[in-house]
Amino acid sequence: MLRRGLPALALALGLLTVSARTPAAAQEVLEKRVFEGGAYQTRGGGTIANLRIGYQTMGSLNAAGTNAILICHFFSGNSHAFGRLAAGGPAGYWDAIIGPGKPIDTDRYFVVSADTLVNVNVPDANTVTTGPASINPDTGRPYAMTFPVVSMRDFVETQKRLLDSLGVKRLALVAGPSNGGLQAIEWAAAYPGFVERVMPVVAADIDAWMQGWLDIWESPIRLDPNWREGDYYGQGREAPLRGLAEAWKIVTLHARDRLWAKQYDRQPLEGQDPARRIGDHFAIERWLAEAAAARARTSDANSFLYMIRANQLFLNEYPSLAAAVAGGPARWLVIAAPTDRVFLSEGVGELVEALKAGGKQVATARLAGPLGHQNGVVGMAPVGARIAAFLAE
Amino acid sequence: MLRRGLPALALALGLLTVSARTPAAAQEVLEKRVFEGGAYQTRGGGTIANLRIGYQTMGSLNAAGTNAILICHFFSGNSHAFGRLAAGGPAGYWDAIIGPGKPIDTDRYFVVSADTLVNVNVPDANTVTTGPASINPDTGRPYAMTFPVVSMRDFVETQKRLLDSLGVKRLALVAGPSNGGLQAIEWAAAYPGFVERVMPVVAADIDAWMQGWLDIWESPIRLDPNWREGDYYGQGREAPLRGLAEAWKIVTLHARDRLWAKQYDRQPLEGQDPARRIGDHFAIERWLAEAAAARARTSDANSFLYMIRANQLFLNEYPSLAAAVAGGPARWLVIAAPTDRVFLSEGVGELVEALKAGGKQVATARLAGPLGHQNGVVGMAPVGARIAAFLAE
Repeated sequence: MLRRGLPALALALGLLTVSARTPAAAQEVLEKRVFEGGAYQTRGGGTIANLRIGYQTMGSLNAAGTNAILICHFFSGNSHAFGRLAAGGPAGYWDAIIGPGKPIDTDRYFVVSADTLVNVNVPDANTVTTGPASINPDTGRPYAMTFPVVSMRDFVETQKRLLDSLGVKRLALVAGPSNGGLQAIEWAAAYPGFVERVMPVVAADIDAWMQGWLDIWESPIRLDPNWREGDYYGQGREAPLRGLAEAWKIVTLHARDRLWAKQYDRQPLEGQDPARRIGDHFAIERWLAEAAAARARTSDANSFLYMIRANQLFLNEYPSLAAAVAGGPARWLVIAAPTDRVFLSEGVGELVEALKAGGKQVATARLAGPLGHQNGVVGMAPVGARIAAFLAE
Repeated sequence: MLRRGLPALALALGLLTVSARTPAAAQEVLEKRVFEGGAYQTRGGGTIANLRIGYQTMGSLNAAGTNAILICHFFSGNSHAFGRLAAGGPAGYWDAIIGPGKPIDTDRYFVVSADTLVNVNVPDANTVTTGPASINPDTGRPYAMTFPVVSMRDFVETQKRLLDSLGVKRLALVAGPSNGGLQAIEWAAAYPGFVERVMPVVAADIDAWMQGWLDIWESPIRLDPNWREGDYYGQGREAPLRGLAEAWKIVTLHARDRLWAKQYDRQPLEGQDPARRIGDHFAIERWLAEAAAARARTSDANSFLYMIRANQLFLNEYPSLAAAVAGGPARWLVIAAPTDRVFLSEGVGELVEALKAGGKQVATARLAGPLGHQNGVVGMAPVGARIAAFLAE
């Protein structure tokens, strides 16, 4: 215990940086694997003939199968939460807190992360998902909008199959940011005996107001004439990239915050004069348009629509969040960003109150940083010690 | 003074409702008038051949012209802030606080409110504006996107011309909610000697983040194929009502709050099952879609785009908000809704700090209610006494 205990204490005291025990030379290149799950019946009664989802792992599962941790990804993410998938390639989004000697310590834990169903990153070579862009074996053509509706619970069920196939018997922790935090809560509700600890980050209940925002996120796709009710796959057809880009523009701004935007300082685009010409614009508008257009090129519009629906169906099999988590695991660490404009502080407060009212041990941590909601994806390093302590409880 | 002093005191103590001195039988039907302002040179250097804006007044201007109050309207509003324009018709949006014996007392003050330039309510018979839907006398056809860009300062300049024509020499108060609050601040900056008191409600500085949100509000219009770069007026053409409705959907949800949405309680639409059918939806989505479609039918898409730009150009002639208000009036009452999701509490706090740093007397008041930003339009009655006291200072 001493070998592990000392660095953990040092971390808690802020004496070590989280990467101190991870020299670059020791960085492992992870393999992206594919789970072939066979036929899958959705919670809504539909059938997916061939379930395939990508995943990655780090660390080793113990003989009892009890040292596993599951990381669930955010709305636009995939399984790449930690490590590198190629030498010199980018690190996963939570790499600051996951790895050998890091707060989620892969010397101790077997950490798994999987691509969800209807993952939006269809054109990305490192994403493997089953969704509306997948081929329906009955027709030999993409499902498009004939793909069955899937819910957050379906995400959990497919991950459960994956974990079963890997020999996992218990999760020491299920965690994730945003959409990943919703999955973590849904896990706690679905498999209370299987989960020891839950750590939702920048996540809270999906109420009617948030269901409305999710509708607003997706609506530009339906406005794009190229969407054609989802029938845009195949040669000679154009994907609804303008509508999809507009959708990403909303998500992008909503998931950031005003402090981040201050760098644009109301500046017009160089050479433009929006005070005189209605076709001229401000720098923030160009940044948003370009970021969103780039994101549209690496994602799929129909999958975006299905992912929205899965979010709107958060905990849809339960009368309330309180009822859903009532019989679930006892230990929770709820991490929130006070400037999160997607999951507001009030909603996070209600989540914490519901958990406390249900007799849970609930700790909380706050994320600073100018990025609002996005702090939960890219700004986790400062709460690393808190996470290590939570795992040690 | 006694006659007026007692009711004001009673109001402050909450002993009277604001309508106690306004029996229905005494309600005056107001006349909507039209100000013909002639040719107008915009701040951006463009020319509007025939400036026409609608307005309404209540109360009497004193001989010195010093008892006037100007009320500026919100993004989707018009001059109808008080009174009724037809017997039995709806009351103005701030009627709870404006009228005989009310906090903004038309027995004492001459209250004016005008339609802005590029007002969105073009199809509305009670709105008179000059904007992209107006006829360009040089061509005999609507300006469409050839209309000159106008700024918040242009709104102020046209209102100043109107007030001059009415003989107003000084404003005891300029006030308004949201976009109207921005106009009030712009007034304070443009005509510091003309304005005694300023009362921005649910308003704060427009920073780059807000400029980005304004871009998001308008973008669905540009996505609608019927928009045709603004060239949709005239026989045989369809207005971009789908895009415009989508734009209103964003504004509508953004300007409300989660407490309001709780009534929809994640319910599916009657007879629909969004957990099984991707084309089925939730009740909140239908409400938003119907409210927005109705709003689209009574507004003009190009005017929406120009109104967005005017907001993005808030205080664009000044290096900062602090610099803009430095030499302005000394007395401010800043009214905000803590659950405002458009102008966030942080932004309102910065406005108050900037005013205090500039040596102003700044009072603040908070609006409760479930409607978030909209509380500043429809929820003003509870701060009536505070407003009366502010006017008495």
